[in-house]
Amino acid sequence: MELKQVIAEEATRIDEVMRQDIGRLSRDLDPLLIDILEYGLFSGGKRIRPLLTVLSARLCGCRDEAVYHLGVACEYLHAATLFHDDVIDNAEERRGKTSVFRRFGLSAAVLAGDFLHAHSMSLVGRYGGQEALASFCGATRGMVDGEFIQLRNAENRNQQENDYFAVVMGKTALLIGAACEIGAVFGGADKQQRAGLRTYGVNLGCAFQIVDDLLDYLGNPEKTGKRVGNDLLEAKMTLPLIYALQRADEDDRARLLTILDDGQKRSSSFEQVSTLIARYDGFLDARKKAEQIIQDALAPLADFGEGSSEKVLLQALCSFVLNREH
Amino acid sequence: MELKQVIAEEATRIDEVMRQDIGRLSRDLDPLLIDILEYGLFSGGKRIRPLLTVLSARLCGCRDEAVYHLGVACEYLHAATLFHDDVIDNAEERRGKTSVFRRFGLSAAVLAGDFLHAHSMSLVGRYGGQEALASFCGATRGMVDGEFIQLRNAENRNQQENDYFAVVMGKTALLIGAACEIGAVFGGADKQQRAGLRTYGVNLGCAFQIVDDLLDYLGNPEKTGKRVGNDLLEAKMTLPLIYALQRADEDDRARLLTILDDGQKRSSSFEQVSTLIARYDGFLDARKKAEQIIQDALAPLADFGEGSSEKVLLQALCSFVLNREH
Repeated sequence: MELKQVIAEEATRIDEVMRQDIGRLSRDLDPLLIDILEYGLFSGGKRIRPLLTVLSARLCGCRDEAVYHLGVACEYLHAATLFHDDVIDNAEERRGKTSVFRRFGLSAAVLAGDFLHAHSMSLVGRYGGQEALASFCGATRGMVDGEFIQLRNAENRNQQENDYFAVVMGKTALLIGAACEIGAVFGGADKQQRAGLRTYGVNLGCAFQIVDDLLDYLGNPEKTGKRVGNDLLEAKMTLPLIYALQRADEDDRARLLTILDDGQKRSSSFEQVSTLIARYDGFLDARKKAEQIIQDALAPLADFGEGSSEKVLLQALCSFVLNREH
Repeated sequence: MELKQVIAEEATRIDEVMRQDIGRLSRDLDPLLIDILEYGLFSGGKRIRPLLTVLSARLCGCRDEAVYHLGVACEYLHAATLFHDDVIDNAEERRGKTSVFRRFGLSAAVLAGDFLHAHSMSLVGRYGGQEALASFCGATRGMVDGEFIQLRNAENRNQQENDYFAVVMGKTALLIGAACEIGAVFGGADKQQRAGLRTYGVNLGCAFQIVDDLLDYLGNPEKTGKRVGNDLLEAKMTLPLIYALQRADEDDRARLLTILDDGQKRSSSFEQVSTLIARYDGFLDARKKAEQIIQDALAPLADFGEGSSEKVLLQALCSFVLNREH
């Protein structure tokens, strides 16, 4: 079956399980909280994290449908971090619509995030047991740690590759790694399979983020559905920019730094910055890095026998992440 | 041994375990996060929640010292909710010093709360297993639900006793009940003992909150360390005020409502409101309610044999909560 079709079908299934779960909860919860959850959870996400959980369990030979509850937990945790991120970033929009924070207010966004956080942990504890929970909590701790590194480094223009990856690991890759790992644990994986699927997920997550950062400069707004240049507006130190700053001659480096340090200039210099990054192969080498990381994602899949549709889909997801246009 | 001495000794012990735990974490975490945790966690709390976890396990005959990790988890979860509460309430101070929110900023307070939240869950999963985790997550969900009920009811001057208790259950009592319950689970309690200790904790928590609300009107600032009248300033619908509004004649009710709806008047009418509440036995009956609830807390202790020092301490805690002056 084609990957895009599987993604669409599984997303529909995940949404069903989430709606049933929220429906059960709604008997006991404040109606406003339910409204926020429905608004914040169902906005057309691709549900890649739950898909990874489900595919990982199946790759280990497990057909138990209860794995969907673990998948849903990953989506809940992801949504919880988005609700809180929007508060932290004072974000107006999320996935093309008004953010939960802007629509329902700060208190509601903090609390609804806390709710989903706790609920996701309880699902993982219930369906995945202690080992899955440890992986899952580790991802949240890493997420917070990544945010702190980002806060502390926000003004640092001398960031290196490893600073970038420390943040990406925490904010994106660890949860994607955990999504795979808890699927593996649920599926009865042995130690090596479990570590392999985690490695797959962590690397897939890193590559995903690099491509995201590339699309923010190079994407086609008609396809991505969002404007280019958001990262520059926020003076975000993404990989293409880090490479360019490392390599630029004195004059070009000074030009870039002058723009980065001035909000007005940032909003009017997108073309100039893109040209400078391209001049120093920032985009090209970020792309190469993503491709190299995808190889690291694919490698551990060799431990699983050939021919299963799950393995084919996990491999296809790697190409999908590298070549996506939105 | 006298209760106050036990509280002090156990608080020292809990602080030690927390410091060791934070010390272990500090190798892997951003230094700013560690600073926030140390600032926010060690500000002289009485550590009643962990004490309850420890006493509950011991009452069930368990001497395993690992129960302290569960106790610490309760304190972490409590601190996480305080970090977020301060953001939601825009609070300047907490326990007599600058709040984490005010000192480190909104992002840091949200994230440090998320970190402690995840970390507490992982401790409970690890040391208490799935049943303890379910109780613990239920307390968090209840806490969020209580906050939502409070948000929705903020302007409602016709609240009844059950509205008040819905909020108190969520915001205070469920976590105290869970602190006892997870100690019982850890201690190998049978079903009845476990339910009994939970009932003890929930009722102790409710009584604690009523006394807190009474102290906000009647406390001696030299003993409580905080000014009276904060709840009135925020127009908070606490039990004494709810009783007074239910019973006041038309004129007095109108007086109270006029004051409640006007921030200026609230800040200058503390004496008048106190007098009106007293006129309609609001303080007296809130006090009676707390005493009655404490009887409900004590009742399930009858299932445990006489004479154990833990039982005596849990009973003494009931008097302590009722008669505390700070």
